[in-house]
Amino acid sequence: MASDHPVSHGSLLDPYVDRYAARARGMIASEIRALFAVAARPEIVSLAGGMPYITALPLDAVGEMAGQLVSDRGAIALQYGSGQGDPGLREGICEVMSLEGIRAHADEVIVTVGSQQALDLITRIFVDPGDVILAEGPSYVGALGTFTSYQARVVHVPMDDDGLIPEALDETITRLAAERRRVKFLYTVPSFHNPAGVTLSAERRTRVLNICQRAGLLVIEDNPYGLLGFEADPERALRANDPHGVVYLGTFSKTIAPGLRVGWAVAPPGIRDKLVLAAEAAVLCHSSLSQLMVREYLATQPWREQVKTFRELYRERRDAMLDTLGAVMPEGCRWTRPGGGFYVWLQLPPGLNAKAMLPRAISARVAYVPGTGFYADGSGADCLRLSYCFPEPARIREGVRRLAEVVGTDMEIHATFGAMPPGGGAGSAGTGAGSAGTGAGPGDLIGPAGAGTVS
Amino acid sequence: MASDHPVSHGSLLDPYVDRYAARARGMIASEIRALFAVAARPEIVSLAGGMPYITALPLDAVGEMAGQLVSDRGAIALQYGSGQGDPGLREGICEVMSLEGIRAHADEVIVTVGSQQALDLITRIFVDPGDVILAEGPSYVGALGTFTSYQARVVHVPMDDDGLIPEALDETITRLAAERRRVKFLYTVPSFHNPAGVTLSAERRTRVLNICQRAGLLVIEDNPYGLLGFEADPERALRANDPHGVVYLGTFSKTIAPGLRVGWAVAPPGIRDKLVLAAEAAVLCHSSLSQLMVREYLATQPWREQVKTFRELYRERRDAMLDTLGAVMPEGCRWTRPGGGFYVWLQLPPGLNAKAMLPRAISARVAYVPGTGFYADGSGADCLRLSYCFPEPARIREGVRRLAEVVGTDMEIHATFGAMPPGGGAGSAGTGAGSAGTGAGPGDLIGPAGAGTVS
Repeated sequence: MASDHPVSHGSLLDPYVDRYAARARGMIASEIRALFAVAARPEIVSLAGGMPYITALPLDAVGEMAGQLVSDRGAIALQYGSGQGDPGLREGICEVMSLEGIRAHADEVIVTVGSQQALDLITRIFVDPGDVILAEGPSYVGALGTFTSYQARVVHVPMDDDGLIPEALDETITRLAAERRRVKFLYTVPSFHNPAGVTLSAERRTRVLNICQRAGLLVIEDNPYGLLGFEADPERALRANDPHGVVYLGTFSKTIAPGLRVGWAVAPPGIRDKLVLAAEAAVLCHSSLSQLMVREYLATQPWREQVKTFRELYRERRDAMLDTLGAVMPEGCRWTRPGGGFYVWLQLPPGLNAKAMLPRAISARVAYVPGTGFYADGSGADCLRLSYCFPEPARIREGVRRLAEVVGTDMEIHATFGAMPPGGGAGSAGTGAGSAGTGAGPGDLIGPAGAGTVS
Repeated sequence: MASDHPVSHGSLLDPYVDRYAARARGMIASEIRALFAVAARPEIVSLAGGMPYITALPLDAVGEMAGQLVSDRGAIALQYGSGQGDPGLREGICEVMSLEGIRAHADEVIVTVGSQQALDLITRIFVDPGDVILAEGPSYVGALGTFTSYQARVVHVPMDDDGLIPEALDETITRLAAERRRVKFLYTVPSFHNPAGVTLSAERRTRVLNICQRAGLLVIEDNPYGLLGFEADPERALRANDPHGVVYLGTFSKTIAPGLRVGWAVAPPGIRDKLVLAAEAAVLCHSSLSQLMVREYLATQPWREQVKTFRELYRERRDAMLDTLGAVMPEGCRWTRPGGGFYVWLQLPPGLNAKAMLPRAISARVAYVPGTGFYADGSGADCLRLSYCFPEPARIREGVRRLAEVVGTDMEIHATFGAMPPGGGAGSAGTGAGSAGTGAGPGDLIGPAGAGTVS
C-alpha cells in the first residue's frame, strides 16, 4: 500500500497508476478510437462498424410485444433471474441451434450478456497469465481484447479461402507442445469469419476436430453469423459433431437485435457449472426483460422469415460491395468473397499501410478498420476490414469508390516517394511479414504473418 | 496441454478439471444452494432473498413506455451502444446522486450490468492474486464472491450499530502495512448495510475518509439502498466529500427494477478509463434498451414519488419484522434495527449454529441466509440474515413466528444435549469467535470475529 494519499487532485495524471493489477496494463484504448468518433459523422460512409441493420425488424410488433410483456408479466420480467438464464429461453436457443445440426439440452446452455460475455467467462475460467490461446490470423478484435485482458498469449494460425488451415494448426500445436507451452483452447469463427469473410469447409471441419481431439485441445466455436449464409443451408456446426470437445457460443445480436445483449454458451457439464458461477460473480444474472423479450420473440414472431429477410438484405449489400470492388479497385488489391455474414477482408498492394491511410480515407469521407486490430502480433498492416451490413447499397458503392481513389492516390505516392509511414509502431512489424505473402495463391490472402506469438 | 483427449464422454467426472485457471478453483457452488431451491416453494416464507417488491411499480405505465420506446426509437434502443453507456442516462444518474450530496459530471459515470458488474470491473482492474481487500464483517455476499474469484484475500473490519468502527479500520491498516501486505481498497456499504442493517454515522464517515486518505487507500462505496431510508433524508455519500479518493457504486435495482440490470460507477478519470476498457472486454456494451428504459423512466415517470412509495412499503415490512421479533424471539437472540434498506442481522444465543438450523427451519416453512456466507473467513456461524423486502407484512410475521419456534426448539436441544452439529467445516470456526462477543455491548453484535484473513 502506498504511504500517502494521491494529492494530484484535478491533475491529468492518474494518481492510481501504480496500484492497478498486472492485467490492467494490457487495457489500453485503441489508437484509432478517436478516428472512429470522427467516422460517425453523417457525410462519411462507414464501412467500419459491424452494426446489424435493425431497421429491417418489425419494430411496431416488437414494441407491442415488449409493452405487453412488462404490463402483463412485469413482476417477473423486471425481477432478478437465475445465473444460468431463463429456462424457456434456453429451450428456444436449443431449437435455433438445431438448424446447424446441434442437439443440445437446455441444461447445457447458459445465457450471457452477448456472446462477448461468454468469451470473457470462458477465458476467466481457463486462462492463467501466460497461457496460450490459438486463434485464426486474423481473428475477432473483441476476442483478442478479452484474451489480452487476462494476460493470455495469442498464437495465430493462418487461414485461406477455406478457413483455418488444418496442417498449420497441427504444426502449431506440435511446435507449442515441444516448447512446453500451456495451450488452453483453439478459438475459431468457422462460418463467415469476422474479419476474414471466409468459411471453414465441411471437409476441414472434420480435420480440425480430429486434430484437436488428438491433442486434447478444447475448441471454442464462436458462431454469430452461422444463420446468415447467402447461398446454401447453414454449415453443420463443429459442436454438432463433438459435444464434449467443443464449447459453442451463439448470439441473437445478428439475427434479432444486439441492443438486447442476449448471447449464450453451450458447454459440457463441468465447464457449464464453472461458467454459471463465473457469470454470477460477474453480473449476478442477465436482464430478465431482455431474456423474456427474446423468448417471446422466438415463440410469437416469424423469426425464421425474419432471418431470411436479413439474409436477402445482407446479400444485396455484399453484392453491391463485391461488384464495386471489382469495378473500381486498383490492380494489386485482393479481397475475400464472403458467402455470408458482414465482412470483406481486403489486402492492399505491396508497400501500402492501412492504418497510415485511414486519416486520408476519412478526409475522403470513407471509413474502414485497419488490419492490425485483428492480430495480437502486429501483423495485418497491409490489410483492412470492410463491412457491408449497415449502409444502404448505394452508400456502399459510393464508399468503395471513395476508398478506391484513396488507394490509387496512396499507390501513386508510394511509387513516387517509396514506402508510406507505417503510422504506428505495431503496424510496421506486420508490413514486412504481410508483403511476403503478396503475389502468392489465394491461400496466402488471409494469414500474411502465419503463426506468431504476442511478445 | 494434456496429451490426450478427454475420453470420459458422458461421465459425471469433469474431464477438464486439470485445465482450469487457478482463479477457477475458488468458484464453488454455495453449499446452501440446494436448500434455496426448496425454499422457493410457496408454502415456505422466504426471509432469505433480497428481491425488491416490483409489484409496487406502475407496470402498465412502464409497459406503455417500453412499447413506445421500441416502436418509435427501436433502431437505437435495439442497437449496440457505447462501452461507457448512454450519455442521457448518465446525466440522469448524476441527478439521482445529487440527492446524496454528490456533484458529479456524466463523464465520470460508467453504466454497468447492475452494480455487481461494477464490483467485478473494479476488482479486475485493481486486484492481483493475493492482494488484500478490506471489507466490513459481515459483508455483501456477492462482493465476497467476486473478490474471491480474483483470488483476493478479504480482511474483515468489525462494525457496530453505527457501522464500520474507525479505530478497528485504522488498526487493521497499520497491521497490514507492518506485514507489508498490498491492500488495494476498502469496500464498504455505508448506508443500510447488507446484511448488517446498520448505517455509518455522519461523524464516522468523516473519520473513515480521513483514515483512508492518510493511508492512501481507495474507498469503494457501494450504495444500493441509500435512497431507501425510513426516517430521515438520505445520508451524505462518502463520495460527496472525496471525489478523488472514492469510487461510488449505484444501482436502479432497488429504486426501479433489478430485471433491467442497470447499475453504475462514478470514478476519477484514470480509473473510469480503465473501467470502460474492462467493460468492453467483458460485455462490449450494456443493453441499449435497458439503459433507455431507465433514462425514459427518470424523464417521464414520477420516480421520486415512486421511491417514496417503496420507502413506505419497506418501512411497514421492517416494522412487521421488528415488532414480531420483539414479541416472539427467545431470550438470548439479538438483532439490528435497520433505518432503511432490506435486512435485519440476527445473532442466535450461544451454542446455536444458523447453518445447522436451516434444514429444520425449512421443515418449519421459513427460510433465511446463514451468517457464514457473509464472511470470507468462516465467521458468522451464530448469525443469520433476515430480509423483509419481498413478503407481505402478514407473511413476515408468520415467518418470524415460525423461526422463533425453531430457535426455541434448538435452544432446548442444546440445553439438553450440548452443542449442535456445526453443519459444515467453515461454520465451526466462527462459532467460537462469535460466542466470544456474546453478552458484550451492542458494539459486538455485528463483527463477532473481528479482523481476520482468508486462509
